[in-house]
Amino acid sequence: MEKQIKSAILLVHCADRKGLIASVTEFIYRSNGNIIRLDQHVDSKKHIFFMRAEWDLNNTSVPAEELGVHFQTEIAEKFGMQWKLYFSDESPRIAVFVSKLSHCLYDILSRYQAREWNVEIPLIISNHPNLEPVAKGFGIDYYIFPITKTNKRSQEQKQLALLKEYNIESIVLARYMQIMTNKFVENYPNQIINIHHSFLPAFPGAQPYHSAHERGVKIIGATSHYVTSELDAGPIIEQDIVNISHKDTVMDLIRKGRDLEKVVLARAIWFHLKRKVLVHDNRTIVFE
Amino acid sequence: MEKQIKSAILLVHCADRKGLIASVTEFIYRSNGNIIRLDQHVDSKKHIFFMRAEWDLNNTSVPAEELGVHFQTEIAEKFGMQWKLYFSDESPRIAVFVSKLSHCLYDILSRYQAREWNVEIPLIISNHPNLEPVAKGFGIDYYIFPITKTNKRSQEQKQLALLKEYNIESIVLARYMQIMTNKFVENYPNQIINIHHSFLPAFPGAQPYHSAHERGVKIIGATSHYVTSELDAGPIIEQDIVNISHKDTVMDLIRKGRDLEKVVLARAIWFHLKRKVLVHDNRTIVFE
Amino acid sequence: MEKQIKSAILLVHCADRKGLIASVTEFIYRSNGNIIRLDQHVDSKKHIFFMRAEWDLNNTSVPAEELGVHFQTEIAEKFGMQWKLYFSDESPRIAVFVSKLSHCLYDILSRYQAREWNVEIPLIISNHPNLEPVAKGFGIDYYIFPITKTNKRSQEQKQLALLKEYNIESIVLARYMQIMTNKFVENYPNQIINIHHSFLPAFPGAQPYHSAHERGVKIIGATSHYVTSELDAGPIIEQDIVNISHKDTVMDLIRKGRDLEKVVLARAIWFHLKRKVLVHDNRTIVFE
Amino acid sequence: MEKQIKSAILLVHCADRKGLIASVTEFIYRSNGNIIRLDQHVDSKKHIFFMRAEWDLNNTSVPAEELGVHFQTEIAEKFGMQWKLYFSDESPRIAVFVSKLSHCLYDILSRYQAREWNVEIPLIISNHPNLEPVAKGFGIDYYIFPITKTNKRSQEQKQLALLKEYNIESIVLARYMQIMTNKFVENYPNQIINIHHSFLPAFPGAQPYHSAHERGVKIIGATSHYVTSELDAGPIIEQDIVNISHKDTVMDLIRKGRDLEKVVLARAIWFHLKRKVLVHDNRTIVFE
Repeated sequence: MEKQIKSAILLVHCADRKGLIASVTEFIYRSNGNIIRLDQHVDSKKHIFFMRAEWDLNNTSVPAEELGVHFQTEIAEKFGMQWKLYFSDESPRIAVFVSKLSHCLYDILSRYQAREWNVEIPLIISNHPNLEPVAKGFGIDYYIFPITKTNKRSQEQKQLALLKEYNIESIVLARYMQIMTNKFVENYPNQIINIHHSFLPAFPGAQPYHSAHERGVKIIGATSHYVTSELDAGPIIEQDIVNISHKDTVMDLIRKGRDLEKVVLARAIWFHLKRKVLVHDNRTIVFE
Repeated sequence: MEKQIKSAILLVHCADRKGLIASVTEFIYRSNGNIIRLDQHVDSKKHIFFMRAEWDLNNTSVPAEELGVHFQTEIAEKFGMQWKLYFSDESPRIAVFVSKLSHCLYDILSRYQAREWNVEIPLIISNHPNLEPVAKGFGIDYYIFPITKTNKRSQEQKQLALLKEYNIESIVLARYMQIMTNKFVENYPNQIINIHHSFLPAFPGAQPYHSAHERGVKIIGATSHYVTSELDAGPIIEQDIVNISHKDTVMDLIRKGRDLEKVVLARAIWFHLKRKVLVHDNRTIVFE
Repeated sequence: MEKQIKSAILLVHCADRKGLIASVTEFIYRSNGNIIRLDQHVDSKKHIFFMRAEWDLNNTSVPAEELGVHFQTEIAEKFGMQWKLYFSDESPRIAVFVSKLSHCLYDILSRYQAREWNVEIPLIISNHPNLEPVAKGFGIDYYIFPITKTNKRSQEQKQLALLKEYNIESIVLARYMQIMTNKFVENYPNQIINIHHSFLPAFPGAQPYHSAHERGVKIIGATSHYVTSELDAGPIIEQDIVNISHKDTVMDLIRKGRDLEKVVLARAIWFHLKRKVLVHDNRTIVFE
Repeated sequence: MEKQIKSAILLVHCADRKGLIASVTEFIYRSNGNIIRLDQHVDSKKHIFFMRAEWDLNNTSVPAEELGVHFQTEIAEKFGMQWKLYFSDESPRIAVFVSKLSHCLYDILSRYQAREWNVEIPLIISNHPNLEPVAKGFGIDYYIFPITKTNKRSQEQKQLALLKEYNIESIVLARYMQIMTNKFVENYPNQIINIHHSFLPAFPGAQPYHSAHERGVKIIGATSHYVTSELDAGPIIEQDIVNISHKDTVMDLIRKGRDLEKVVLARAIWFHLKRKVLVHDNRTIVFE
C-alpha cells in the first residue's frame, strides 16, 4: 500500500488567458499549501487551459472542507473555471460489471485485496452467475441481472438503484458483454471505464481478435475508455499493444490479448482513481 | 556489410499433407546441402503449408543453376507446390518512388551506401523535383514524372518502361503521395512495398496523424504493406508504434511518426530482400 | 481453455550435421504423423543443432508409449542426439514458492483456475504464513517452512520430500525471497523458474528498483530465468520492460514493476509448460 | 520545419519551499507573458524543486534581453535559484564527433538538412578520414584528429580550439570510439551527448552486443547520456529497446541495434536542443 499524506487534488479547466497558473498557485500559497505536483496543459487550437494541482494539506491555514468555497469565490468565478476538488484520504467507491470472463475481475480484485489502490469495491454486478464464486472468494456482494432483448431498461433501473444504495461513484466494465443504454450511461458521465480488446479505432464492436487475425495485422492492442453514447467511441484513457505474427491463431490472440486487457484496464483505473484524468471534447488529458 | 556464404533460399507453399518437410529436406540432403535455417508454417484453418529453407551451397553435388529443375520434377510436381528459388549472392534491384518528404529516402540511401543491405538501387522516381539533390548526392538516377488528373496512366506507362529498362525487381514507395492504378500495380504483384503512416486498419487514407490527434489515441503507428488494388488494404509486412499523449500536437505526431515510418519501412524492405516474406490470401507469413 | 488434440512434442539437440531434419521428419512421416509445427535452430558458432517438432498423434501407426523407444534406436543413437518426448495430454505438475508478496501468486492461480494453462498446481510452499488465505481461497495445499541462517539445508530437505510426495515436475518462484542452495537446485535442473525484478544483467541481487531509481534509468525491466547455482545468472527465458521517468518514485517503480513481473513470469511459465524451451550453455532457445 | 513563435524558456532549480511556482508565474504574468507550457518536479527525497516554463514573448512588456536581469533580481536571488534562460529563435551550434560508423551521422545530417531541428551543425570532428565524403555531401567542415596513445591530450587541445573558433555550444558523439579525457569533458559539462549501444547499466564499455549475445538476453537496448568523467556512467537522457531471440547472431544484434542507436540519440538531441533537460546528482529531469 502506498504511504498517504493528506493532500488536496484540484482539477481545473477554462478558456486560456494570462495569469491562470499564477492565480491558482498564489491561492494555494496563501493557504500555506506546499505543491507536491502541478501539471498543466493548453489546448492551443481550442485555447482551453487544463490543470491539475496536488498539494500537501499539512499545516495549511484553511480547513479542507472550506477550500472549495474559497476557491470558487476567490478564483474560479473570476476566470469562469470548471473545477473539481478531491482529497487523497477519500476512497472512491466503485462497482465492477462482469459477464463470464474472469481475467480482468481477478486482476482487479487481487489488486484490491493487496491494497494496491486506494478504493472501495463493495459491489459486483453481472448478467451471468458464473463469476459469483470469485466474488464470494473475495467477500464482495455479487448481483445477477440477466439481460434479454426486452428487459434491459428495467434491469438497468434496478442496477441504478443498487448503485445508489451502495453509494457508487464510478463503474468499471471488466469485459462486461452488454451495451448499456444511453439512459444508463448519462447517470455516470466519464465515470464508466470500459476495456475494449482492440487498438481503437481499429476493430470496434464484436470479435476484434477474429477481425485482427483476418486482416493479418502484426500488432494487437487493447483500449480503455470512458463509455459514452456511441459504442467504443468514448474518450480513450489508455492503450497498449503486443506483437503478434502469422504463427498466432485467433486463440493465441485471445490469450495474448487477455494479458493486455488486464494491464491496460488496471492502468486506466489507477489514473481515474488518482484523479489524473480530465475529459474535454471526447479526448482525455491524462497527467501521468 | 554482412558476411556472405552462397546459399539457396527456397520458398514453398501448397495444400498441407503428411511428409512435406521430410520430402523437401530429403531433397536438400541428397544434394549434400547443409540447412542453415528452416521455417515452416501451417495455416490450420485453410490447410495450407508454407516453408522457407535456406541451405549452404558449398560442396553441394547439384549445380545451383540446375536446382530448380530438379526440385520441380522431383518434389514440386508431386505435391502441387508453388515455389521460388533465390540465391544469396544475387542482389535484388529496386527502385524508390518519392514525393517531397526526404526522411525515408535518406534512411534507405544511407543504408544502401553503408552496405547494410544486399541490394542495388539504380533508380529513383518522383512526381516532384524536390529530392533530386538527395539522389544526386548518392549518385543515383532521378526521374521526374509530374502526375495530373489526366496524365496518370500515360506517365505510368513511361515509368513501367523505365523500370524495365533498369531491370527493376521490386519497388519501394518511400512516402510517395500518389495512388497507383491497378494497371500499374498488377505488373508488380507483392513487389511494391508501401509505408503508411498509421496503425492500419485504423486511419487509412489521407492525413492519418490529423485523424489520430482528433480521435485522441494514446499510441500512433506505422504500417508497411504490399500494394494491392485496394488502397491501404494490402498484406501487412511490418507494423510498429510509439506512445503519444495529450501534450502532442499534430506537428509532434508528424515528428514522432517520421522516425517510426523510417524504421518500419526499413524492416519491411529487409524482410523482402532476405526473401523472408510469403503472401497468401492478403496476409503475410514473415519468417523473421 | 485451449482446445486439445493429442500431439507429441519432441525436443532434440546434437552436434550439427547434414540430414538431421530429413531424418527426424522422415521418422515422423513413417509413423503417419502430421507435423503441426516444426522449429529448428543451428548455433552456427558452436555447431549445435536444436529442434522442436510437434505432430498430431491421431491415426499414427506407432503407439504413443512406444514412440520414444523407436526414436532412440532408429534416429537418436545414430546422430548422438539428446532428446525429450512429451505428450500434449499430460498436465505438468508444478509447485509455487512464495514469500509475502501476492501479485504473482494471484496472477498464476487465477490463470490456473480459469484453465488458461494445461497444468496441475497441487502445492504452494512459503517461508511465511501471509499468503495461506490466498492458497486456501483457491483450494491449494500451503506449507510453511520458515528459513533461518541455520536451518536452510534441513528445511530444503523437507521441501524436497514434499515435492517428491506431490510428484512435482517443475517449480515456480513467484517472488520467493530466499536463495536456494546448490544442493536444492541441482535436483531440478532447468526446472526452477524465477522472476527477477530487473532487466538482467542490470541490477542483480536485492532491491533492484531502488538501484534503478538511484541510477536514473528511463526504463525498468523484469527477467524470468531458470535458477542455477549462480544468483540471477541462469538462462533467461523472457524479459520485458516499461518506460519510467524522473516523476516516478521508488514506490512508482515497484508499482509499475509488479505488472511487469506478473506478465513476464506468466509468459515464461507458458513457454515452459508448452515445452518450447531448450537450454544450452546457459542460454535458452525459446521456440515461441 | 516547426512553426516558430518567439518564446522564452526558463529552467530553474533550487531548494524546495512554498510559493515557488506562484512567484515565477507571477513574474511571467507581470511581464504580460502567456505561458505555453509549464513543467515542474519536486525531488521529494532531496527536497529540490525543478521547473521549466516556456512563454510567448509576443506583446510582453519587458524586452527579451532584459528578462534575465529582472528575473535574477526580482525572483532568483530571493529563493537562491540556479537558472538558465533561452529563446526559441536562437539556434544552438553543435559539433558532431564520429569515427568510422556512418548510421548515426547520416541520421543526424538528414534531419539537419530537412530542418527537423532548430540547430546549426557547422563542424564534424573525427579520428578517421572515412566519413569525410558524407560530411562533404552535406557541405559541412570535417576535421581529422588521429588519436594515439601519446597524443590524445594535445589533439584534444586542438579540438577545443576548433570548437571555440566555431563557437560550439554542445557536442554529439555519434558512435565516436574514443574516450575523452576529463580535462576535455569538463569544458562541456552536461553538453556532450553520447550514444552507448546497450541498455545501461548493463554492458558498459566495449562490445556490448557481443556481451548481450553471450549472456543470452531477450532484449537489447541503447542509451543516450551526458558524458562525465566516469565511462558510460553519466546522466541518462533517453533509452529504448528492441526484442531479440536465440535466432539473432551478433551481426543481427548489431543490425537491429543500429536502428535503435539512431533513434535514441536523435531523441536525446531533440530534448537537449529544446532545453527540456535538467541535470542534478547524475540524473536527468526530462520534461518531454
